[in-house]
Amino acid sequence: MTEIVTAAALVIGDEILSGRTKDRNIGTIADHLNAIGIHLKEVRVVPDDEAEIVAALNTLRAKFDYVFTTGGIGPTHDDITADCVAKAFGVAIDFDARALSIMKAAYDARGLEMTDARRRMARIPAGASLITNSVSVAPGFIIGNVIVMAGVPSIMESMLKDATQHLRTGAKMNAQTITLACPESEIASLFRTHQAAFPDVAMGSYPAFSDGKYRTELVLRCCDGERLAEAADALKRALRAAGVLPARA
Amino acid sequence: MTEIVTAAALVIGDEILSGRTKDRNIGTIADHLNAIGIHLKEVRVVPDDEAEIVAALNTLRAKFDYVFTTGGIGPTHDDITADCVAKAFGVAIDFDARALSIMKAAYDARGLEMTDARRRMARIPAGASLITNSVSVAPGFIIGNVIVMAGVPSIMESMLKDATQHLRTGAKMNAQTITLACPESEIASLFRTHQAAFPDVAMGSYPAFSDGKYRTELVLRCCDGERLAEAADALKRALRAAGVLPARA
Repeated sequence: MTEIVTAAALVIGDEILSGRTKDRNIGTIADHLNAIGIHLKEVRVVPDDEAEIVAALNTLRAKFDYVFTTGGIGPTHDDITADCVAKAFGVAIDFDARALSIMKAAYDARGLEMTDARRRMARIPAGASLITNSVSVAPGFIIGNVIVMAGVPSIMESMLKDATQHLRTGAKMNAQTITLACPESEIASLFRTHQAAFPDVAMGSYPAFSDGKYRTELVLRCCDGERLAEAADALKRALRAAGVLPARA
Repeated sequence: MTEIVTAAALVIGDEILSGRTKDRNIGTIADHLNAIGIHLKEVRVVPDDEAEIVAALNTLRAKFDYVFTTGGIGPTHDDITADCVAKAFGVAIDFDARALSIMKAAYDARGLEMTDARRRMARIPAGASLITNSVSVAPGFIIGNVIVMAGVPSIMESMLKDATQHLRTGAKMNAQTITLACPESEIASLFRTHQAAFPDVAMGSYPAFSDGKYRTELVLRCCDGERLAEAADALKRALRAAGVLPARA
């Protein structure tokens, strides 16, 4: 049996809670972790408030193998994530020579000044490893089991990609989807019976309504690919016998 | 002083955490609550797991004035939200005569049968009020300070709209946005000083990079509209004096 590796995401920022910014990072992180073999088990969105951020960090890093944070590592006063992470871990935070060096080289090349505001983005908790930001230079970081990334989606994606090499991954969740042209209430009883027969395969039903028609997507998920195929094949046979799935589907 | 009314959102569903479905409800709820005078202070996404759902419900309903849940109230076995809410409140759950009556009338009119699966959607915790679902009939509900809604965005929106009449609202958060054609590191120092001068006005800086150019949006937020205008006007003067905001902006 391959190990199951778990994670939480912690989205930090008043702008998500006010509705001003619509989060896109949760979906990106979910897709990426699913693809590499880390199971995202919880997400929290908290405001730019030190007590809330520290409490969420300490709860989530104790509960899961990894915590991925987004937001709050820019140059302005409302960017308090790095300080909160240092506080949560009980370590010092100061200007990091590696970060300053990377940033200075990039700013020099672009003819930009190393202002105090930019220098602020080089404040990194003691003991952290840096994550490369291939978009706007100022790095993210990893400390313990917490991966700290920017909130701007393109920068977050760049950091998530670079951080991946440092992550322990485990069993990948495999999934099969069966799409039906009927409302889910028509297959609910059959599907419940099928779930009971395969308790080790997670089964979800997702309704969709478009172009005036109901559709239902049945999703089966299991780390064991053979077991998943067995459950999916048996479900297809049952759906065909019930007349809700064409013979060739 | 008008009262501050707070809320959390609890998004329930494996499909969000696996990346299969990209959540759109968080943004809708955030916008709506902001518009009516309820402050969204936290969001959690949890899997279709009874223990996780009940724990999150009990934490959030104790901490905030309202909790808005989405997902898990359909007809299939993986829809366990209503049962979890009953468990969290320590009340019974059974078929609700009001819900059955509404659903039967609508199904009769559409020539649909009241199957066991559809009947399952009429299971409502004891003491709850119903919320109208103008899309697909099966209702949501309110119990105590918890508003239980569907996960399909169009249905969620219908329920959120209907639930609003039952909500206590308070001070609205007013916001002003100032957009600058420079990276945020250039105004970070000025902005920090301005925040210190107006500690009662929340100030956030949000970078954007598009068409090869940096932009910065400064957002000021305060329930007191006059105080907000005062802080925004003073900030504009400071930004003009610094040469990063045109005279007319």
